[in-house]
Amino acid sequence: MASLAAQLPQTLNRSQTLRVPQRTSISRISSAPVRRRASGGGRISCSLIEPDGGKLVELVVSDEPARETRRREAAAYPRVRLSRTDVQWVHVLSEGWASPLRGFMREAEFLQTLHFNSLQLEDGSRVNMSLPIVLAIDDVQKREIGEHRKVALVDWNDRLIAILNDIEIYKHNKEERIARTWGTTAPGLPYVDEAIATAGNWLIGGDLEVIEPIKYHDGLDQYRLSPAELREEFSRRNADAVFAFQLRNPVHNGHALLMTDTRKRLLEMGYKNPILLLHPLGGYTKADDVPLSWRMKQHEKVLEEGVLDPETTVVAIFPSPMHYAGPTEVQWHAKARINAGANFYIVGRDPAGMSHPTEKRDLYDADHGKKVLSMAPGLERLNILPFRVAAYDKKQKKMAFFDPSRAQDFEFISGTKMRTLARNQQSPPEGFMCPGGWKVLVDYYDSLARAEDRKPREPVPV
Amino acid sequence: MASLAAQLPQTLNRSQTLRVPQRTSISRISSAPVRRRASGGGRISCSLIEPDGGKLVELVVSDEPARETRRREAAAYPRVRLSRTDVQWVHVLSEGWASPLRGFMREAEFLQTLHFNSLQLEDGSRVNMSLPIVLAIDDVQKREIGEHRKVALVDWNDRLIAILNDIEIYKHNKEERIARTWGTTAPGLPYVDEAIATAGNWLIGGDLEVIEPIKYHDGLDQYRLSPAELREEFSRRNADAVFAFQLRNPVHNGHALLMTDTRKRLLEMGYKNPILLLHPLGGYTKADDVPLSWRMKQHEKVLEEGVLDPETTVVAIFPSPMHYAGPTEVQWHAKARINAGANFYIVGRDPAGMSHPTEKRDLYDADHGKKVLSMAPGLERLNILPFRVAAYDKKQKKMAFFDPSRAQDFEFISGTKMRTLARNQQSPPEGFMCPGGWKVLVDYYDSLARAEDRKPREPVPV
Repeated sequence: MASLAAQLPQTLNRSQTLRVPQRTSISRISSAPVRRRASGGGRISCSLIEPDGGKLVELVVSDEPARETRRREAAAYPRVRLSRTDVQWVHVLSEGWASPLRGFMREAEFLQTLHFNSLQLEDGSRVNMSLPIVLAIDDVQKREIGEHRKVALVDWNDRLIAILNDIEIYKHNKEERIARTWGTTAPGLPYVDEAIATAGNWLIGGDLEVIEPIKYHDGLDQYRLSPAELREEFSRRNADAVFAFQLRNPVHNGHALLMTDTRKRLLEMGYKNPILLLHPLGGYTKADDVPLSWRMKQHEKVLEEGVLDPETTVVAIFPSPMHYAGPTEVQWHAKARINAGANFYIVGRDPAGMSHPTEKRDLYDADHGKKVLSMAPGLERLNILPFRVAAYDKKQKKMAFFDPSRAQDFEFISGTKMRTLARNQQSPPEGFMCPGGWKVLVDYYDSLARAEDRKPREPVPV
Repeated sequence: MASLAAQLPQTLNRSQTLRVPQRTSISRISSAPVRRRASGGGRISCSLIEPDGGKLVELVVSDEPARETRRREAAAYPRVRLSRTDVQWVHVLSEGWASPLRGFMREAEFLQTLHFNSLQLEDGSRVNMSLPIVLAIDDVQKREIGEHRKVALVDWNDRLIAILNDIEIYKHNKEERIARTWGTTAPGLPYVDEAIATAGNWLIGGDLEVIEPIKYHDGLDQYRLSPAELREEFSRRNADAVFAFQLRNPVHNGHALLMTDTRKRLLEMGYKNPILLLHPLGGYTKADDVPLSWRMKQHEKVLEEGVLDPETTVVAIFPSPMHYAGPTEVQWHAKARINAGANFYIVGRDPAGMSHPTEKRDLYDADHGKKVLSMAPGLERLNILPFRVAAYDKKQKKMAFFDPSRAQDFEFISGTKMRTLARNQQSPPEGFMCPGGWKVLVDYYDSLARAEDRKPREPVPV
């Protein structure tokens, strides 16, 4: 289980792992706040890493008259209804997280993703692309589309979300897709159950035009910064290094330790103003993960209570759905952050991992994620920061590097254990998590229990 | 089912598919026979494509005194016993078919193979590598090896085959290996049953020193030319283009048609002396494939009876075992032939494909092999020649391009149908295969039937 284990720097000083880029001198960055729109790639501060393909793709129709035209035209197109997860992928594509992709994958992109985890560009270079970003349709929809070259993508209320242009329809071999993406076809993979098992037997690719920016109206939209907006924010803060931390769980002090430690080391390396992108995943997650709204409350507390420094931290939501596909998925998590301007990526134990759905073991080797990431085609420009595990140091009463020479002093607090403590309204060891953050977790499990028809809560054994 | 369907040129004239290399002018090739040993990469005629990594790897200990020293030293090493398939892989590695690999894969190579179908070299370039070439050991063997840095690899008679140096032992996650290699984990994959299912839970990688050239003493060793020997032969023949044809089935006139047609087109393109490498696979094949010895007899007849021209054809055995892993495996088949000097590779319908082991369909999409091959990292230097299907033209009484405008004139003769005809001692339609070649097949099935305890043969319905 990956994400709740705290992790600490392992090879930060090993030059073969930590590729220090040719950096632009800090003096070349304007000290005035950069408020320009960073879209199109040309107006981004030169200190930020270039998006994949050289240019940030943005697919939202830019003005209302053009939107009206598209809406009128789309009325005549065959319709494909999107699931909530499909809309999340439209969101991801629309803002350029998957640059240079311009829409749902056609077969050539799908095959390169499955076989090579990368796409070859026209100039012969490669960008990373490890997860298929595809849209499934069924036989009936395929027949309805017939010879049309465009389709209208609508949501569950039949509202037009996007137009897919110059479409290509090809076979959706689910078994092969699942086997090559997850390295298993065992039943019970959450994303497969959610988005693949019941999907149609065809995939439809094409170029997207998204009518309006995707919004969720859940009180969190202000955290959903696009890659262009994040680049603007990093430039405004005069960042000369951006280090991204992907998470889908509450932040405990082990996480915080490695983030502050990374910043310290970047300063020691000569960077003047490294900025942390604390980047919780906001799309589909499995049922027993803590929901986004509660995680965001918890992250707020972590900043309020000074565990992380708001001056050097940007908190934003990464709109992607979660695959739980381990070494394959961690590449996507890293690649998307390049497009948002990050040139350092923190990777811990078993990233994007989970338990095997049918066997009593973790699905992935805990070290494969960072190994695969360090060798992945198209990620050569990104500095991978692998961390080794931290644990609760009972002597120091805080989260610290695990020191094998005094293993008996350390306690590993698993995600399961943390959830169980919070569910029982018990406290974790002092120094494990800031009190305000812990209270959010307790409140969340309390709300769950109360929702269960107010039946008396049974304490769960730790 | 791939290999028995005849295939004909489809996009030979499309420049984006057929990458014509910067060719050395014919006048720069010595017209004197080149008899020098081509090992080491430096002495190969400049007209042949460079091996992957720039240098052909050869791992056989070169002289008897050195062999004796190795044998003495190896007596003290822990022993790992090789299966017949393992020895075939030692053979493959020893002659540099997998250049620049120098032995069974360590974990970094294994992971790159599974995830990226390619290996990154120190200079940042990529070579193709799609199949894991690995050696499995079990818990007992792992314990016996302990802290040793070298092991002795022995055959079923305890004869020393090779030494594996600077070893690395890592986990053999069979499920993940199978899922990522075959795109399915369905039971009944022949290579999985043969070589993986019963293998140990650890893999051992390292640098190979092979004591002596691998020989089989089956009367066919003279056909087992190494990449270096093939390069020497192509140079001796003054080849200015080498086009490889991988097969594991008898050659019928559809195959022959596309090979002779390819040569004609290469001549039209300006090559003066294109040489065909007719390259049957010689390692492990599944039980219902025609055995190598019978295939070689059949191929001999095809040359004797003038279906292929011996002057411009080199027949040799490719020592690799067969995975039946479709688009993943076809990359290996192509990559290995680069190392043998081929710069053109013929690919047909569903290469390395087979029926799904548990469902009533082909395991792979028939077009994915050629698509994946044309996009594969590390194969950019190889000219891929995709062919479309040929069939028996009942009007012309010969194998010909399938012409959809007169579909009723064509008959598709599947591998199953061909085998059934031969088993029943019936004749195929005139012009399907040369008579001598067909007789070999009839004799093979007759020998099978006689081996079945001489019970009376029942004719099998066609």
